[in-house]
Amino acid sequence: MPSTSVVNKDLLAERSKCTFDREEFTVWWVGGKDRLEEKRNREHFCMNQPEFGDKIPLHYLSHKELYEETIRKATAIFAKSKEMVQKKHGYNAGNFVKFLDVLTGDGFMHQANPLAVHFSMFVPGIMGHGNAEQQERWLDRALNCKILGTYVQTELGHGTFLRGLETTATFDEETDEIVINSPRLSAYKWWPGGLGLTANHCIVMAQLYSKGRCHGVNPFMVQIRDEETHMPLAGIEVGEIGNKLGYNGVNNGFLGFKNFRIPEKPISSVLNYGTMVFTRVLIVLDTSQMLARAATIAIRYSCVRRQSVIDPNQPEVQVIDHQTQQGKLLPQLAKAIALKLSADNLWKMYEATQVDLETGNTDRLPELHAVSCCLKAVSTGDAAAGVEVCRLACGGHGYLSSTNFLNLYGSATAAVTYEGENTVLYLQTARYLVKVWNQALKGQQLMPTVRYLEQYATKPVKRFAWSDSTPVIIEAFQAVTANRLRLANEHIQQRVKAGRTPQEATNETGLELVHLAEIHCRGFILQSAYAAIEQACQTASQPLGEVLREICRLVVYDEALRITGDLLRFTTMSDPDLVELQRKYEASLGAIRPNAVSIVDAFDYPDFILGSTLGAYDGNVYERLFEDAMKSPLNQEPVNRTFELYLKPLMRGKL
Amino acid sequence: MPSTSVVNKDLLAERSKCTFDREEFTVWWVGGKDRLEEKRNREHFCMNQPEFGDKIPLHYLSHKELYEETIRKATAIFAKSKEMVQKKHGYNAGNFVKFLDVLTGDGFMHQANPLAVHFSMFVPGIMGHGNAEQQERWLDRALNCKILGTYVQTELGHGTFLRGLETTATFDEETDEIVINSPRLSAYKWWPGGLGLTANHCIVMAQLYSKGRCHGVNPFMVQIRDEETHMPLAGIEVGEIGNKLGYNGVNNGFLGFKNFRIPEKPISSVLNYGTMVFTRVLIVLDTSQMLARAATIAIRYSCVRRQSVIDPNQPEVQVIDHQTQQGKLLPQLAKAIALKLSADNLWKMYEATQVDLETGNTDRLPELHAVSCCLKAVSTGDAAAGVEVCRLACGGHGYLSSTNFLNLYGSATAAVTYEGENTVLYLQTARYLVKVWNQALKGQQLMPTVRYLEQYATKPVKRFAWSDSTPVIIEAFQAVTANRLRLANEHIQQRVKAGRTPQEATNETGLELVHLAEIHCRGFILQSAYAAIEQACQTASQPLGEVLREICRLVVYDEALRITGDLLRFTTMSDPDLVELQRKYEASLGAIRPNAVSIVDAFDYPDFILGSTLGAYDGNVYERLFEDAMKSPLNQEPVNRTFELYLKPLMRGKL
Repeated sequence: MPSTSVVNKDLLAERSKCTFDREEFTVWWVGGKDRLEEKRNREHFCMNQPEFGDKIPLHYLSHKELYEETIRKATAIFAKSKEMVQKKHGYNAGNFVKFLDVLTGDGFMHQANPLAVHFSMFVPGIMGHGNAEQQERWLDRALNCKILGTYVQTELGHGTFLRGLETTATFDEETDEIVINSPRLSAYKWWPGGLGLTANHCIVMAQLYSKGRCHGVNPFMVQIRDEETHMPLAGIEVGEIGNKLGYNGVNNGFLGFKNFRIPEKPISSVLNYGTMVFTRVLIVLDTSQMLARAATIAIRYSCVRRQSVIDPNQPEVQVIDHQTQQGKLLPQLAKAIALKLSADNLWKMYEATQVDLETGNTDRLPELHAVSCCLKAVSTGDAAAGVEVCRLACGGHGYLSSTNFLNLYGSATAAVTYEGENTVLYLQTARYLVKVWNQALKGQQLMPTVRYLEQYATKPVKRFAWSDSTPVIIEAFQAVTANRLRLANEHIQQRVKAGRTPQEATNETGLELVHLAEIHCRGFILQSAYAAIEQACQTASQPLGEVLREICRLVVYDEALRITGDLLRFTTMSDPDLVELQRKYEASLGAIRPNAVSIVDAFDYPDFILGSTLGAYDGNVYERLFEDAMKSPLNQEPVNRTFELYLKPLMRGKL
Repeated sequence: MPSTSVVNKDLLAERSKCTFDREEFTVWWVGGKDRLEEKRNREHFCMNQPEFGDKIPLHYLSHKELYEETIRKATAIFAKSKEMVQKKHGYNAGNFVKFLDVLTGDGFMHQANPLAVHFSMFVPGIMGHGNAEQQERWLDRALNCKILGTYVQTELGHGTFLRGLETTATFDEETDEIVINSPRLSAYKWWPGGLGLTANHCIVMAQLYSKGRCHGVNPFMVQIRDEETHMPLAGIEVGEIGNKLGYNGVNNGFLGFKNFRIPEKPISSVLNYGTMVFTRVLIVLDTSQMLARAATIAIRYSCVRRQSVIDPNQPEVQVIDHQTQQGKLLPQLAKAIALKLSADNLWKMYEATQVDLETGNTDRLPELHAVSCCLKAVSTGDAAAGVEVCRLACGGHGYLSSTNFLNLYGSATAAVTYEGENTVLYLQTARYLVKVWNQALKGQQLMPTVRYLEQYATKPVKRFAWSDSTPVIIEAFQAVTANRLRLANEHIQQRVKAGRTPQEATNETGLELVHLAEIHCRGFILQSAYAAIEQACQTASQPLGEVLREICRLVVYDEALRITGDLLRFTTMSDPDLVELQRKYEASLGAIRPNAVSIVDAFDYPDFILGSTLGAYDGNVYERLFEDAMKSPLNQEPVNRTFELYLKPLMRGKL
């Protein structure tokens, strides 16, 4: 920590302007007093473990050093945390996995870690899907880290398209064994976290062949390294896939098989709708947190940083007083909140569906799947873009690794691709929308999140009556989606009539389909945020209610101003309406401005989670930037050896 | 290089579909046969110098190792290149600096290098602005690298706002010396390239004080390190500012002064409009090249990669056959070309202005400045965003450092902030537009790039007559700018009438102003591209002309579809017009698709400039990905030492 503990006076002034009870906001944001207490206890515990810190900031390390430091830290965290959980609650799987939440995300280990996949995918893979015998064999060992595992699916040549996987698992009738092979380079497994040098077991997805016939992709439990020596077993080629934009602590790996024999039958099918939706809820929550952290950093810095005058007779202003800066940052703050509230809503849908499933009712599964697809896509895309808006709003200093923006971006943008590439996900949602649109055209009743389509399918096309109240703007998003869906559906049918196959016609309408799925999702997000905030306002104090409603208005105006083409096209919005909307948007920025620091304070991120020289609570940004620079190995000696080796010979003309 | 030199068969098929003469395209793109020959000779020379390669890919090195490797490579390049230039042309400043072009950019050294600023800013700083005595003292030594310099302006507390600099240079009458001080931490110089551990001299910008009065910011030549030992001189605190998102070879530094005395008077004023415009032309050219390289990588990979079926009875398609993929990549290709052609246009304006200046005519300076501001902003913003679109279009593999996307993004996004932060630049252009708008309202004649405003200022508001021919769409951008300018100007005046100062009113209209400056610039870019392509078509072969016109249409449609809100608002565009525009856009994607690989081939980037596992000419992407991974230091031993240190103790419960 910097030697100074004095809080920057501009931040003090900002905090003194707060109109609401910050603790009340935090309790709401975190989801209750108990959760908040639990969170703070966990953070307090972590903050006070000296082994949990980085000796040198990770951004100064080599690729290899970073892996080694990550393993040191991750194993220390797991061991210490287990000990703590044992003392406090008695050790069991549930307690431990819950506690590990904070450790498997990137909030604490800013380039993540290779044991995360062990707990997030390997252990659940065994718990959910191995049979009783298999569970007995592996579950206890996995939970106690006696074996270290990962989940191995993607290959060099195939990611999204599961059916295309090339790894083969051939049943050998003579020995009753399975023989696994990577028939060519593109069949090599590529990407699984922790696979490179860490895991000794994995669940491998491969095409099952038996009696010359392919039975499709199945999961197999495979030991890949010796438990005593950690050497790769014969027939196994394993290593790590190299440096990446982010997540360099994860130790993503490759894996090739050459006639590798396992005694096992496949374990039962691994993925189902439920797991996928559950994972996507977590992704939306995670990325909303990344965006909230980026907004925290940039908003605090924008109140400390003074640059340029507005009134030539006055001193330079806090950069947040430039309207353009407010227009960059405050919508990110509001968006982070809206995304989190949508994840909460998706979670409720997921729970309701689980209850339905227990009674054998699968009606809502396709709807749940469709929402989870587009919500994952919008949240990861918006969070990644928003982190960059926040970084760029910090000017040159935002480019420094010590701000932690690069790690936040690395994590957010990775989520754009993993667990379903965003464009592919939009197309899945669009496919669902086209399907239900055609049901609605036939007069069938639709599921709740798409029920709004019914009125547009059954009535003649009429412009939606615009007004700029929040609920009406949200309905306008639905009107836009419905109209775009009607057009895209017509274009698909026109193409089919012109002789294209339905698949070709759909592909040739792909851009329109992606676009409408996105707008459908934005309507869902705004509706989720609006409903959650209105509900919160029933019990919240009046000052907090006012702040939350202002945040809701800001995100709604911001989103509406991004689709003015659609609004002018499909609603009765006029030119003066548009001027008025812009005016209201600007007023909303101005209304949130005085509370901006207090809102991000209320997100309640400790400095070690933010991990940023520009975002710390005390606002001593220049001291922290300088302090990080002084940790650079290049600053430990006044003259680098390259002076004698290269620079001096160059200067003397002797190179 | 990978052992295989067989070109991927899908790329061969793509190339066989080419409808135009690739070499003719390349000659046009590079700017003539002579330039192309020069470029290829230079590349051939560089390719054949073993010292110019990296021993280990830079992304595996630590921050310190990367600096040391960069110095090794940069000094080798400078020494070898000088020798070569000497042999071939006879050594002189002009020849050498021209040759160094390729070396100071990031095309060859993917994280750039600390000697770049020596040639791009330090040497020109002396050439352009030192007096005769000063030139004699430093110029020859600087040109021959007998001293190593940099240009030192920004501070921890101030970047964009030059007047706010806090470093003081106080004239001491008694000793006839200047005493330089950093009165507080925020006054420390921060960011200059090469300043950290490389330079021993620099041009320092500081507030000149004499007889108790401040005479504003002036440049001073300062020696900071001993030429023999490289030790920092007494009174100098110097070091590097730490790790960054990109450009880690540049060795950006900090510099603090404590009563540091120099014998010099300030050198004459350093920056003028000309230098700034010149620098911005280079930035637009550079960033257009970054985008073109990213498009090359992504388009080649998208033709090699096969993923998902369209027809269920057919094999998986090349991913570029998904319309959504075309919609991501082909506009980037077209945009890169349009940005390059706008830079050419700005360059012509710059040259014409230089001729004017010689006759004392400064009339076009403000216009030139206004165009250079917004063009720098749009090109850097679009290039950075476009690189990320290309990266994400490569799915998970795009996230690997070996693709070189991270370096391209690091370079492009840095340019968003340096040499004038983009929002600040947009506001400068907007200020010019508001000024000339008010001139036009008074019936005054405007300069060529804004002359179109006259008709909108003098005639009553009428909707612009939409049609989707290229020149009309370009005029529509002008109509949108004029209408938005009219509104913003009215809003400023309304705010002034309501009691705000003109500065406050302008700040409160900031979002509108930024927006209209951007659209003005997009009109300029489209107009520049259209004019340049029409001119090229006068001499080009018919097949090339067709391709170039298709590229122009694509970028025009793409830009138009991004401002449909404005087009519906300010032109007569109807709903069927919009449907038709979308249809034409899709047709344009389809028309360019078969030539996509050939167009990026015609950009003529050798593999070592692209530096990408996914973008190489032969398309052996999986071999190259694997090969780069195998260079990882973590893959040099089957078991990392952390197994015995941490993993095994964890597994045995002994941690």
